[in-house]
Amino acid sequence: MPDQIAELLHELIVSTRIMANEKVLDAFGHVSVRHPRDPKRYFIPRHRAPELAEMSDIVELNLDSEPIKPTEFRLYSERVIHGEIYKARPEVNAVVHHHAHAVLPYAISGREMVPVFHLGAVIGQVPFWDQRDEFGDTNMLVIKPEEGASLARALGPHWMVLMRRHGATVAGLSLRELTFRTVFGCDNAKLLSQAIAHGHVDSLSPGEAKLTSAHQLRPPSMGRAWDYWVRQVEKAGLMPAKSGESKSAAPAKRAKSKPSKKSKTKSRR
Amino acid sequence: MPDQIAELLHELIVSTRIMANEKVLDAFGHVSVRHPRDPKRYFIPRHRAPELAEMSDIVELNLDSEPIKPTEFRLYSERVIHGEIYKARPEVNAVVHHHAHAVLPYAISGREMVPVFHLGAVIGQVPFWDQRDEFGDTNMLVIKPEEGASLARALGPHWMVLMRRHGATVAGLSLRELTFRTVFGCDNAKLLSQAIAHGHVDSLSPGEAKLTSAHQLRPPSMGRAWDYWVRQVEKAGLMPAKSGESKSAAPAKRAKSKPSKKSKTKSRR
Amino acid sequence: MPDQIAELLHELIVSTRIMANEKVLDAFGHVSVRHPRDPKRYFIPRHRAPELAEMSDIVELNLDSEPIKPTEFRLYSERVIHGEIYKARPEVNAVVHHHAHAVLPYAISGREMVPVFHLGAVIGQVPFWDQRDEFGDTNMLVIKPEEGASLARALGPHWMVLMRRHGATVAGLSLRELTFRTVFGCDNAKLLSQAIAHGHVDSLSPGEAKLTSAHQLRPPSMGRAWDYWVRQVEKAGLMPAKSGESKSAAPAKRAKSKPSKKSKTKSRR
Amino acid sequence: MPDQIAELLHELIVSTRIMANEKVLDAFGHVSVRHPRDPKRYFIPRHRAPELAEMSDIVELNLDSEPIKPTEFRLYSERVIHGEIYKARPEVNAVVHHHAHAVLPYAISGREMVPVFHLGAVIGQVPFWDQRDEFGDTNMLVIKPEEGASLARALGPHWMVLMRRHGATVAGLSLRELTFRTVFGCDNAKLLSQAIAHGHVDSLSPGEAKLTSAHQLRPPSMGRAWDYWVRQVEKAGLMPAKSGESKSAAPAKRAKSKPSKKSKTKSRR
Repeated sequence: MPDQIAELLHELIVSTRIMANEKVLDAFGHVSVRHPRDPKRYFIPRHRAPELAEMSDIVELNLDSEPIKPTEFRLYSERVIHGEIYKARPEVNAVVHHHAHAVLPYAISGREMVPVFHLGAVIGQVPFWDQRDEFGDTNMLVIKPEEGASLARALGPHWMVLMRRHGATVAGLSLRELTFRTVFGCDNAKLLSQAIAHGHVDSLSPGEAKLTSAHQLRPPSMGRAWDYWVRQVEKAGLMPAKSGESKSAAPAKRAKSKPSKKSKTKSRR
Repeated sequence: MPDQIAELLHELIVSTRIMANEKVLDAFGHVSVRHPRDPKRYFIPRHRAPELAEMSDIVELNLDSEPIKPTEFRLYSERVIHGEIYKARPEVNAVVHHHAHAVLPYAISGREMVPVFHLGAVIGQVPFWDQRDEFGDTNMLVIKPEEGASLARALGPHWMVLMRRHGATVAGLSLRELTFRTVFGCDNAKLLSQAIAHGHVDSLSPGEAKLTSAHQLRPPSMGRAWDYWVRQVEKAGLMPAKSGESKSAAPAKRAKSKPSKKSKTKSRR
Repeated sequence: MPDQIAELLHELIVSTRIMANEKVLDAFGHVSVRHPRDPKRYFIPRHRAPELAEMSDIVELNLDSEPIKPTEFRLYSERVIHGEIYKARPEVNAVVHHHAHAVLPYAISGREMVPVFHLGAVIGQVPFWDQRDEFGDTNMLVIKPEEGASLARALGPHWMVLMRRHGATVAGLSLRELTFRTVFGCDNAKLLSQAIAHGHVDSLSPGEAKLTSAHQLRPPSMGRAWDYWVRQVEKAGLMPAKSGESKSAAPAKRAKSKPSKKSKTKSRR
Repeated sequence: MPDQIAELLHELIVSTRIMANEKVLDAFGHVSVRHPRDPKRYFIPRHRAPELAEMSDIVELNLDSEPIKPTEFRLYSERVIHGEIYKARPEVNAVVHHHAHAVLPYAISGREMVPVFHLGAVIGQVPFWDQRDEFGDTNMLVIKPEEGASLARALGPHWMVLMRRHGATVAGLSLRELTFRTVFGCDNAKLLSQAIAHGHVDSLSPGEAKLTSAHQLRPPSMGRAWDYWVRQVEKAGLMPAKSGESKSAAPAKRAKSKPSKKSKTKSRR
């Protein structure tokens, strides 16, 4: 396994652990990343609670979400969510499907999710998708390719889609961007719910949303947040070992990690 | 004690610790399991906060909730809840009575609890029971056999019953099913309360509820969630020792548990 | 120091740590206990965040809240709350003043706090007291003896009083009863707030409240809850050493405590 | 580095860790302190999540927020918030900018934040500032000196300012006062939101607010709260080493800290 791939798969598990630790993922939900050299493939762990997934659990699938190599592993029944979005959106390199308690009230109430603070700008416009509209009564899981394709159409050119009475799916240019959008998307949802309880909501203007999202998705902001979430994962004893290391979880003394290179550059306005 | 029974009693304590760790149970509440070979008996810990109950605290009762063997242990005064449900519902093999903060608002407000997301489908239809209707002013505990029988009648063919100004009782075909229904029933309650605050609630259609509940109660979903909750119990230092092991709590190094066999089967759609 | 007193002072610190660990107390608030052999005296820690108070911080005061022996310690400026309640209510042996977030919304909104679940019955009827009514604009602390006496009059024959825009004061026959009433009083407050958000509140009937409170304040219920809270304090590393022991916090291995004697009696309906 | 400065910078990091641990700060936000001997300079960490900032990350800036000595460190893009407030308010010696979830609902709803319990009195009157009013659509960050100066004008003679759709900025005479005002300001915000949900809000009278704020900002109250928060930081393993000590985090055994000198003085009414 080339080093670049190993790095990426480690980042996939770290991103997954971050989202588990930040209460985006629980027993359910899954995160994937597109193959960096073959856009017709993607990586995703086998059927397992995301916090428990290890690097050795990762499988490689084609965009029809079938394994490249035969495997004895059980796979996520909803993996077509990932494959169909990678088919429809060539620029997307990372996808998460989740049932975070912060966003589910919107999937239940149908209330529009709008950005209400600067970091929330990264969610963009958030469309709804209701599996029942096209498929009638189902077991509510996105299992058939046509169900995944329908969800990808609802996502359209956007970055987050709410799934009625089910959850949300989020896309990103990279795992870091995906993590940033997903965690702050949850924060935005929580804050919007609280403002609703205050009886008035003032959201970002379209111009603010555009300028602010572009600024927040630059490496310094994303790197600073990533470093913070990694520290929280380390404190929780959830840091995955790299492939050359011992299989045990990263020891507590590694908690004094160096800042990521991206955030340690020179002074600038 | 035959191995099958020992396994089951260990699972009873694990299920109890999971529900304590997931904030379903606190100082109060109790979980029981029917005897696998004698349907006229069930197992339940003695009178103790559920998180503190050990395998050595478990007693065997008949369906009148009297001990099979004389015991010096104080027993739960509300154990008739379990016995009367086992009498009325031969297919039920596990019962929990709890006061989870997620569901109590419904017991206080009388607001109907309906499934509002796919995992919540497993609660089914949730009837109310008000001890005052039949028994007038009481100390609000279900202590007399006729009080337990009244509650079992209110539960009827369903799987969860809300007890006005008191709590809830949940039944399952197995401890794993019971745990899954109880924890996701609490999640459903929290999410419904948040959607109520948004001013609109969209619930599952009857067809969705039926198909979705059947799908979620299959072994892969239940096993995946069980493994996740077990890991949380291990991280909290709450994993009970098996009977052959030392009496001390399971050490932290056991936290790298293998996935349950049920969830490690081969790839399938 | 006789053993009975040492036991009691240890229980005072344990009760304080329980209420800190259960988020009743934070940097502020204080707990006291009456002298078991001299009803004209009571024990209370010196001016310190309650979680940090040790047995060596406890001072002995008369009912005018002056130290029995000269001390260099700074004392709580609001200690007259305790002294004046002990004067007015000979049967009261323990008092806590707190600003728990669960109950403060009632002190701000003026909304009546009523028992809405069986364990909440132990709060009884909860009167309001507004320092401004009698004393006009003040620094809002209960510092002068006449302010403490006014609060004690508002408490009257009850067990909990809400202090407008400030907090609450709770009394008990013993430290265990005080802890039980205070923690479940906070639970009742949280649940009532959630039912208010549901749009309807069904409270206990007067007959239910009376029968239920009497039942819950018997030793088995209180002992079971106490054992549970002690275990949580042990898990948090907050268990205070007894006077004969080393000054360091109780080690983690003590977490496997025996159940309290009171809750290990023989089987009964 | 003289000892007084080293003490102050250590206190800056402790204050920052307290506010991170108390959920005021997350990946974003920053705390600064004015140079005690040169009012034209202030200290602030380099661009890093506040919880991760170490003493070695602190830089010294002039009031135009430019580094005194050339540095390779990336600096906070919003550091002009600090410099412009130090210019406008000579008595202010410490500033924090944050996005605490407790206060953001007010920044979104426009609901007035008023003191509703005695400890909340320390926020004083809280004005709003909307960057859009003066600068139109921006990336919503306070980056240009004129943006910082505009915010400082909105703050005026007050101690806390809400920034619409963004967060809050708080000032203090000292780091301890800043920490006290910020943490209890968040508590006040949470409690006010809960009282809003109850349907009625009773706030402090102007006379109560003035007398109470003055009383709470005296050393005994602030020291008692500081000691409590330091203990929570120690328990979380977040206590920063002093400059003479090893670089590793303070070990757990230091958790039994002595009370601060200020709070251990003699008995007084």
